[in-house]
Amino acid sequence: MTVTPPPAPAPFAAHDYADRMRRATADASEAGLDGLLVTPGPDLVWLTGYQPTAITERMTLLVLTQDRDPTLLVPTLERPDVERAVGAPSLLVEDWADGEDPFVRASELIRADATMGIADSAWAMHLLGLQDAVPGSSYRSLTQCLPMLRAVKDASELARLAAAGAAADATYEQILGVRFAGRRETDVAADLARLLREHGHEQVDFTVVGSGPNGANPHHEAGERTIEVGDAVVLDFGGLMYGYGSDTSRTVCVGEPSALVREVHDVVRLAQQAGVDAVRPGVACQEVDRAARTVITDAGYGERFIHRTGHGIGTTTHEPPYMIEGEEQPLVPGMCFSVEPGVYLAGQFGVRIEDIVTVTETGAKRLNNTDRELRVVD
Amino acid sequence: MTVTPPPAPAPFAAHDYADRMRRATADASEAGLDGLLVTPGPDLVWLTGYQPTAITERMTLLVLTQDRDPTLLVPTLERPDVERAVGAPSLLVEDWADGEDPFVRASELIRADATMGIADSAWAMHLLGLQDAVPGSSYRSLTQCLPMLRAVKDASELARLAAAGAAADATYEQILGVRFAGRRETDVAADLARLLREHGHEQVDFTVVGSGPNGANPHHEAGERTIEVGDAVVLDFGGLMYGYGSDTSRTVCVGEPSALVREVHDVVRLAQQAGVDAVRPGVACQEVDRAARTVITDAGYGERFIHRTGHGIGTTTHEPPYMIEGEEQPLVPGMCFSVEPGVYLAGQFGVRIEDIVTVTETGAKRLNNTDRELRVVD
Repeated sequence: MTVTPPPAPAPFAAHDYADRMRRATADASEAGLDGLLVTPGPDLVWLTGYQPTAITERMTLLVLTQDRDPTLLVPTLERPDVERAVGAPSLLVEDWADGEDPFVRASELIRADATMGIADSAWAMHLLGLQDAVPGSSYRSLTQCLPMLRAVKDASELARLAAAGAAADATYEQILGVRFAGRRETDVAADLARLLREHGHEQVDFTVVGSGPNGANPHHEAGERTIEVGDAVVLDFGGLMYGYGSDTSRTVCVGEPSALVREVHDVVRLAQQAGVDAVRPGVACQEVDRAARTVITDAGYGERFIHRTGHGIGTTTHEPPYMIEGEEQPLVPGMCFSVEPGVYLAGQFGVRIEDIVTVTETGAKRLNNTDRELRVVD
Repeated sequence: MTVTPPPAPAPFAAHDYADRMRRATADASEAGLDGLLVTPGPDLVWLTGYQPTAITERMTLLVLTQDRDPTLLVPTLERPDVERAVGAPSLLVEDWADGEDPFVRASELIRADATMGIADSAWAMHLLGLQDAVPGSSYRSLTQCLPMLRAVKDASELARLAAAGAAADATYEQILGVRFAGRRETDVAADLARLLREHGHEQVDFTVVGSGPNGANPHHEAGERTIEVGDAVVLDFGGLMYGYGSDTSRTVCVGEPSALVREVHDVVRLAQQAGVDAVRPGVACQEVDRAARTVITDAGYGERFIHRTGHGIGTTTHEPPYMIEGEEQPLVPGMCFSVEPGVYLAGQFGVRIEDIVTVTETGAKRLNNTDRELRVVD
C-alpha cells in the first residue's frame, strides 16, 4: 500500500482561536456556569494556541467570562512567550511577578459567588488557592460540565486527524517488514517511534509492543522480553501530528498463528467492525460499546474484554467522548474517537484492533485503513 | 577538564520506599493533617517508585494515613504495572474498573472529617471528585503544608544529584568546542540534548540557548535565530539522571565580548558567588536571594534581575525550597537547590550563571564546577 502524505494543513489563525473562546464562553453560560478557568494543557492550546515551555507551580490561568474579554493571567517571565501565541490578539494579558500572590490577582477576575468550570488537569494547588481566595465561589470539572467542548471537530481539525491517521497507517505498513523474532519488544517499539516521526509526527505518545503473554496486559507498553516465533503481538501506537492525535492498533503473529490466536483474532475483528457499524449521528456512545461487546460476549470471551471500547481524540490522544456503558451522549457529525475492542487471555496472549473513526452524516468514516486481517510477520 | 563518570548508584530498595512513606505519614501527622493523598508525579515516584506510563483522567491515588497501611488505589488496567514497582511490597493495592466510581472507592479510605494534604499537581477533576464524595473533608496543597518533605536528600540521593551535575558539567565543557556563529539556537540546543544523553541523562528537560536579545528573556528556550559573532549566549540546560535532576547555566560570548557584556557578566558572577557564600545551615532561604540581589542592586542592575535566585532540585528540576524574598525556611544539611542570579537587558542580551549546591554542615558544596569566567566560543 502506498500512502501519499496529504499536504500540510494551513496553520490556525487568530480568528480561529477567537471563535473557540467565544463559543466556549457561550457554551459555559448555557451550561449554567459563570465562566471557565483554563490552565496550561490541551484545552489552553485549543483555545489560545499558547503552550508554555513547562507546566510548573507558577500559575497561568485563562479566565473566560461573559462580562469581559478573555484574560490570560501569566507569570511575568512568560509574558513574552504568550505575546507570540497565535491567539494572543484576542487576549488581555495580565502578568504577576515572583513574590506576588497570583490567587489575589485571579480573585479580581472571578465573581465572589461564581460557579466556574475548571480544566480537568489544573493543579490541585491552584484550585485550592482559588477556593481560598474566593471563598464563595464553586468549581466544576470542565469535562463534567462541558464534556463535548472540543469533541466536534471542524474541517481543518479533521484534516489534521486524517493526516495523523495516514501517517500511523504508513507506519504499520512498514513495521510489517521489520524483523520481530529474536528482537526485544523495545527494539520494535523504537522502530515504531522512528517511523511515526519519519511520517511526520512531531510527538510520539505511546508505542505498545505486547508480545505473547505481555499482550494480555492491555496497559503493557514495551519491555525487555525477546519476541519468539509463535507469539501474537499487540501493536498500539500514536502521537501528535500538526498538533492532532493518531492512535491505531493491530495484532500480528510471528510465524503461523495457532488455532486459538486465529479464533480470538476473528472475534475481535468482527467486534471492531460491529462497533464501527454502530456509529451514526444520534446514537448514544454506549451503543458503540455494546455493539462491540456483544460480539465478544456471544463468542464466550466477555470476561476477557476488560476495558471500554473507545475514547475521543483531538489535541490529545485520550479525551471525551468515551465509548463506554452508561455514556448516553449522542454522537454528532465531526466527533472523532477510537473503536478498539480487545480480548486478553492472561498468561497467553492478547488481541486488540483499533481504528480512529469520525462521525459523518451517514455513519462512520475510518481514519485508519490498513488491513485488519491477521498478518504474519517474521 | 576531564570528567570521570562516577559509578552508577545502587537502585533504591523496597525498604527505602517503606521508610519514605512512614516518614511522610509521620510528618503529615505532625503538621496537623490526617493523612496525605498522592497522585502520579514526582511525589509518587519518590514515595513508591511507581510511575504510570501516562497520567490520565483515570484516577490513581496513594492514601497515607496513620491508621492503615499505605494504600494505592489504581485503575484495574494498571494493577500489573503497580505490582512490579520496587515499593509495591509495602503497598495495599486496590483497583477500580472502568464504569466504577473511583471517588466512592477513595471515600472509603478517607475519614469523613479528615484534613488531607494532596499532591500539588493532582488533577482538579480528582480533587473536586474527592470534595464531593467526602463533603466534610478538607484539603491542603502538599507543598503548602509539607514543603520540605523531599527537600533534604540522603546520601544515595546526593550521589545521584552529584552524578547528574557532573554529566551537566561534561556537557558544558564539550559545548564550548562546538561552532556557535552562523548556526541556529535550536542547533546548539540539539547538541546540548545529545551531550546530556551521551553523558548518561535518561531525560532532557530543557536546553535554553538565548543568543543576543533572546537572552534577555529568561524564559526563552531556543529558537530559529541564527547566532552571530558578538552575541552573548545564555546556556541553561538539565534533565534527569538516575531519576535525579541537573540544572546549570553559563553565559558565553561568540568572539570578543563588548565592555558592557564583560561588566554585566562580572556583576552576575560576583552575585552568584555571594549567593553561594550565604549558604549555611540555619540561614533562611531568603538570605541567599538577598545576598545575590544586593550585589546586582549595588551595581545598578537591580531592576534587571527579574526572577528569584533559586529553586530546589531532586526528582524534579523545580521544587521547594525556593530562594526568594519572604521564604523564611532555614537551610538544612542535605538540601539541594540552584543559585542562579541573572541580569536581563531588553533588546540587548542577558547573563545568567547557575550552579546546583547542596547544604553541608559548614556551608555550600557546589555540584557544578565548571569555569564561571566569561568564555569565548567560535
